Amino acid sequence: MAAGSGFGNLFRVTTWGESHGKGVGVVVDGCPAGLSLCEEDIQIYLNRRKPGTSKFTTPRKEDDRVEILSGVFEGKTTGTPISMVVFNKNQKSQDYSEIASYYRPGHADYTYDCKYGFRDYTGGGRSSGRETIGRVAAGAIAAKLLKEMGITVEAYTKSIGPAKTPEEIECYLEECMERNDSAGGIIECVIKGMPAGIGEPCFEKLSANLGKAILSIGAVKGFEIGDGFFAADSTGLTNNDAFYYNNEGKVEKKTNHAGGILGGLSDGSDIIFRAAIKPTPSIFATQETINKSGENISVNIKGRHDPVIVPRAIVVVECMAAITILDALLMNMSARVEHLKKFYER
Amino acid sequence: MAAGSGFGNLFRVTTWGESHGKGVGVVVDGCPAGLSLCEEDIQIYLNRRKPGTSKFTTPRKEDDRVEILSGVFEGKTTGTPISMVVFNKNQKSQDYSEIASYYRPGHADYTYDCKYGFRDYTGGGRSSGRETIGRVAAGAIAAKLLKEMGITVEAYTKSIGPAKTPEEIECYLEECMERNDSAGGIIECVIKGMPAGIGEPCFEKLSANLGKAILSIGAVKGFEIGDGFFAADSTGLTNNDAFYYNNEGKVEKKTNHAGGILGGLSDGSDIIFRAAIKPTPSIFATQETINKSGENISVNIKGRHDPVIVPRAIVVVECMAAITILDALLMNMSARVEHLKKFYER
Amino acid sequence: MAAGSGFGNLFRVTTWGESHGKGVGVVVDGCPAGLSLCEEDIQIYLNRRKPGTSKFTTPRKEDDRVEILSGVFEGKTTGTPISMVVFNKNQKSQDYSEIASYYRPGHADYTYDCKYGFRDYTGGGRSSGRETIGRVAAGAIAAKLLKEMGITVEAYTKSIGPAKTPEEIECYLEECMERNDSAGGIIECVIKGMPAGIGEPCFEKLSANLGKAILSIGAVKGFEIGDGFFAADSTGLTNNDAFYYNNEGKVEKKTNHAGGILGGLSDGSDIIFRAAIKPTPSIFATQETINKSGENISVNIKGRHDPVIVPRAIVVVECMAAITILDALLMNMSARVEHLKKFYER
Amino acid sequence: MAAGSGFGNLFRVTTWGESHGKGVGVVVDGCPAGLSLCEEDIQIYLNRRKPGTSKFTTPRKEDDRVEILSGVFEGKTTGTPISMVVFNKNQKSQDYSEIASYYRPGHADYTYDCKYGFRDYTGGGRSSGRETIGRVAAGAIAAKLLKEMGITVEAYTKSIGPAKTPEEIECYLEECMERNDSAGGIIECVIKGMPAGIGEPCFEKLSANLGKAILSIGAVKGFEIGDGFFAADSTGLTNNDAFYYNNEGKVEKKTNHAGGILGGLSDGSDIIFRAAIKPTPSIFATQETINKSGENISVNIKGRHDPVIVPRAIVVVECMAAITILDALLMNMSARVEHLKKFYER
Repeated sequence: MAAGSGFGNLFRVTTWGESHGKGVGVVVDGCPAGLSLCEEDIQIYLNRRKPGTSKFTTPRKEDDRVEILSGVFEGKTTGTPISMVVFNKNQKSQDYSEIASYYRPGHADYTYDCKYGFRDYTGGGRSSGRETIGRVAAGAIAAKLLKEMGITVEAYTKSIGPAKTPEEIECYLEECMERNDSAGGIIECVIKGMPAGIGEPCFEKLSANLGKAILSIGAVKGFEIGDGFFAADSTGLTNNDAFYYNNEGKVEKKTNHAGGILGGLSDGSDIIFRAAIKPTPSIFATQETINKSGENISVNIKGRHDPVIVPRAIVVVECMAAITILDALLMNMSARVEHLKKFYER
Repeated sequence: MAAGSGFGNLFRVTTWGESHGKGVGVVVDGCPAGLSLCEEDIQIYLNRRKPGTSKFTTPRKEDDRVEILSGVFEGKTTGTPISMVVFNKNQKSQDYSEIASYYRPGHADYTYDCKYGFRDYTGGGRSSGRETIGRVAAGAIAAKLLKEMGITVEAYTKSIGPAKTPEEIECYLEECMERNDSAGGIIECVIKGMPAGIGEPCFEKLSANLGKAILSIGAVKGFEIGDGFFAADSTGLTNNDAFYYNNEGKVEKKTNHAGGILGGLSDGSDIIFRAAIKPTPSIFATQETINKSGENISVNIKGRHDPVIVPRAIVVVECMAAITILDALLMNMSARVEHLKKFYER
Repeated sequence: MAAGSGFGNLFRVTTWGESHGKGVGVVVDGCPAGLSLCEEDIQIYLNRRKPGTSKFTTPRKEDDRVEILSGVFEGKTTGTPISMVVFNKNQKSQDYSEIASYYRPGHADYTYDCKYGFRDYTGGGRSSGRETIGRVAAGAIAAKLLKEMGITVEAYTKSIGPAKTPEEIECYLEECMERNDSAGGIIECVIKGMPAGIGEPCFEKLSANLGKAILSIGAVKGFEIGDGFFAADSTGLTNNDAFYYNNEGKVEKKTNHAGGILGGLSDGSDIIFRAAIKPTPSIFATQETINKSGENISVNIKGRHDPVIVPRAIVVVECMAAITILDALLMNMSARVEHLKKFYER
Repeated sequence: MAAGSGFGNLFRVTTWGESHGKGVGVVVDGCPAGLSLCEEDIQIYLNRRKPGTSKFTTPRKEDDRVEILSGVFEGKTTGTPISMVVFNKNQKSQDYSEIASYYRPGHADYTYDCKYGFRDYTGGGRSSGRETIGRVAAGAIAAKLLKEMGITVEAYTKSIGPAKTPEEIECYLEECMERNDSAGGIIECVIKGMPAGIGEPCFEKLSANLGKAILSIGAVKGFEIGDGFFAADSTGLTNNDAFYYNNEGKVEKKTNHAGGILGGLSDGSDIIFRAAIKPTPSIFATQETINKSGENISVNIKGRHDPVIVPRAIVVVECMAAITILDALLMNMSARVEHLKKFYER
């Protein structure tokens, strides 16, 4: 709610921080008490979004070390807010006067100025990719708790541009870099071990909240669940998943076109969704744009750019999914009178 | 928030009602005071979701008349909650004992039972298409207010299955009906007249909220904005939209791959998005499923089904978009100190 | 949140309706599934706020019959929104042109006009006492569920003006009525059977939410818990409640100056709070005020006024307390990892 | 909403941190862009809650220096989250094994254990007075913005125990300290310069939100607005405030029994409220309580205690009021269609 930096209902995440400020961070309010948690649990996830691990990610060094400032006592979460921070160490003193004077195509420069009357032009401010650090730190906690419940969230690259295999992808990205261009791609995510019946009807459907979570990540332009856009071309006979009792008498579905969600609630199958990531807007090639003096100009944006952000966005997708799933599991605990009564009989 | 039947922050919509209960309705809290409003303003929108207007929609008669119960005084909204109701008139007393005994494939029967321990099995209960009546009634108000501000929201059928022209669509649907099957499709929506800078950064991006709004509609399996999934195959050089000053010195973009949203905020171009609608799960063909006695069975679902819901879903998409856009416009009013001061100087 | 007609997090109440519109009502979202509920359960509570039951309440007849429009199936709540309405039957066609022209002292006429630019002047609009019907209908559900859990909420008159016994009160009210004046009073409320540890730390303290719930009732000007304002005059030695183990080894307190809440969480003792109700602003005596033409005037307000609203407000206090307590109990279910895991092991 | 560490709708505050953790802090989301802000603006407020400034506050040294980590660029707020932290410097390594073994009377030790299954027993954890640092830092921003709009919030000691003048208070506190006892008191707060019509009807009344804000402060046991509990003893004739046009034609009231709020909305007069603060529960005198081994015991709590917290709570009351008032002013901007249209005509 409110000004946009908070997400979730009972597991509530609030992120803060700019690319070139003192740091970036997150406050997690509503994490249940009693979860074993240390900084290393978070760091493992943060390391996965680190640049510089291949020739297709920016060579800049981001040695992001997370600190837990509150909410953990003797190695366990206390139920009170967990504040985490990563101090920015790589703030090169740089001349931003040029970039401050014009609006980069494909970036939020122009729209931020329209909204706020001015903007923090150093490194993209709040619209920087570093904003995702807070999401990943919070998501690492959610994912850890889910794992203890037998629920796993795993995302991976489905395609980069038209390329689908490692060889094709390497080849395609080299072509992009040669012409100072960039690439997009598709990330797929699978959630295993979900109980059935999770989510809320109507506006808080699990699919709607997963969609919002993923579409709130900077470069995401599309979201689909199960067969997604392909389902629009299918028919009821094909698209309906037949229920059956398996040998142990457990309910299963013969197919999973629905992607694990029916009527907004989980159906006990794997939840599968995909996110479309646009090509990185920062490219070295010359581009047309406008400056703040009312002129149409050509620009060459300097700096360090990832030719593709898909590899680094994978962990962000996983983390946003984990936050959403955990929040839905917490919300669901109060769905039935019988559970409420049993809970308080203890 | 909460149990899922509310949507929006400042323009807050709460829907209620089941298909076969006494009625369906909505409470709109936070509609600004002073909007001319009468029942006919709402009725026009409700009529657009009415079945029975072509051979491809269900022949059942739904004579849905809306009543405004509160919040309007002498023809104008008062700023207090607007309660609207449509009483159900078409409740055929019917035998539901069969449908109560098994889970329809592609429906929410099974997942509702998993969540709540039982369900209202008459006509789908809360997961019925009639739930959208409240959304449309609320959206009609939002759309009216937007129109007075010069902002229009228009949705239309982009495709039905693989068919794109009226002739192809008619032909395709007839084929589907002949084999007791159903069809899905894609709805596209264009929002014109948006000011730039609307939306909130981070989790409340305009694109994320539009995505949630649309994905919360029953049969929607995918959402994309601008070039959407196609952008994943594009490159930065192509996908970036170049800014320029037009002849009047106004900022425009040479292309609109972004679909009118940059960094989660509107950029002043048309907002364009698409929704993938799955094929209607209710079909006349024989299907395999399970009953509640632990048996794998075959069923033929009786009743009246739309072979395709796309035509009736168009107005629902428009209405959810209108609610989202209006809410974002209201939220944005407090973005700058200078506006706050000017507002209270009066 | 939002425009003010909603209350609660997981048990979410949205009220609507004006005194002289078509009706008043409420939507309850998030009531757990499986509660036995019929209209009579609600009606019993509504009857308690009915006027005309003594010579000190307004002689106007309000035959308020509640209808449940949704959310109940075969006598049980389904977990989906419960919509309830009371249609207004007693709308005397009356001449409001005089009352529309001026601002009644002690009423919201002036402030509503300042906020919205105009107001529904018939019967007070949204600031009417009839707005509480929705609160009572929702609270009746909460109270019923609490009762099944062994938790009772009971409010009663503590004093009317300076009078404390029935004889004193009758005598005092007769004096007030003789001089066309009105009286205020204090309502006390006791909640028995609360488990310990309910509430949230920091801003969502149970005491803070009870305070907001009660202070949101029209005429309430003060709220205190336990010893309340008296505690300000006490000392730590007296005010601290000593814990001890009783004969069954259960934790109890020797005194209850805290009123059952420590650090914002219930401590297992009775929760006790009081609300100060101001004298009814509508009186027959001549009063000075202003009209909308810029003149200072004297007015005699006609109509039917309660000389004291305390007796009718008792059930409203109970109901707001019940809503708050139930919401806190639902929120608390996700406080510990061990409970979460156990819940989903089933 | 959520787990309790967030407050406000559009001006949204999330606090975190424990007494003996690494630090305490706050994230302010939704502060309008363009406010001049530096650390000194915050520090001035924090210094006011500092202990050790008189013989009646704890002699422990808390050299709390605030750091702004985000949301301010070139001396102005950017509209994005403002993260502020005060690192804890005074963490004496101390033996907490004794205090961990029992429950202090009047503290949240027992209730936290009931809720979470265990607690951070070092220095009170989240229920410590240091939690208010985040509130004060956020409130300092709100107060600064309000001041620029001509609105001031000022709180002061009304009484300490039964004492009202400085001499009486000094004498009373010395008596308390001599017998190892502590004192409570009443804080009064006046808000000047409020426009009329601010607040929301029904559940989000300005009085209700002020009440919640103040009652969420640790030791507050009562809240009253205007005449408050005294109004319960008054009559309509006396308690109603007569409106009149003053010499400049401006609407004023002859009295202000209402305390500046009518029907939940500000009426343009000064807003006046009072908070009852209980005596500090930490006292040196011997007290009876229980330990975790099931025994009734006597304890002498060591450490450094304020004999009265009223002087240090004054700035907390001011800050919570400022946050509430600013949030209400922001919420009110979208109340009328005419304002919305005018805003977007620019």
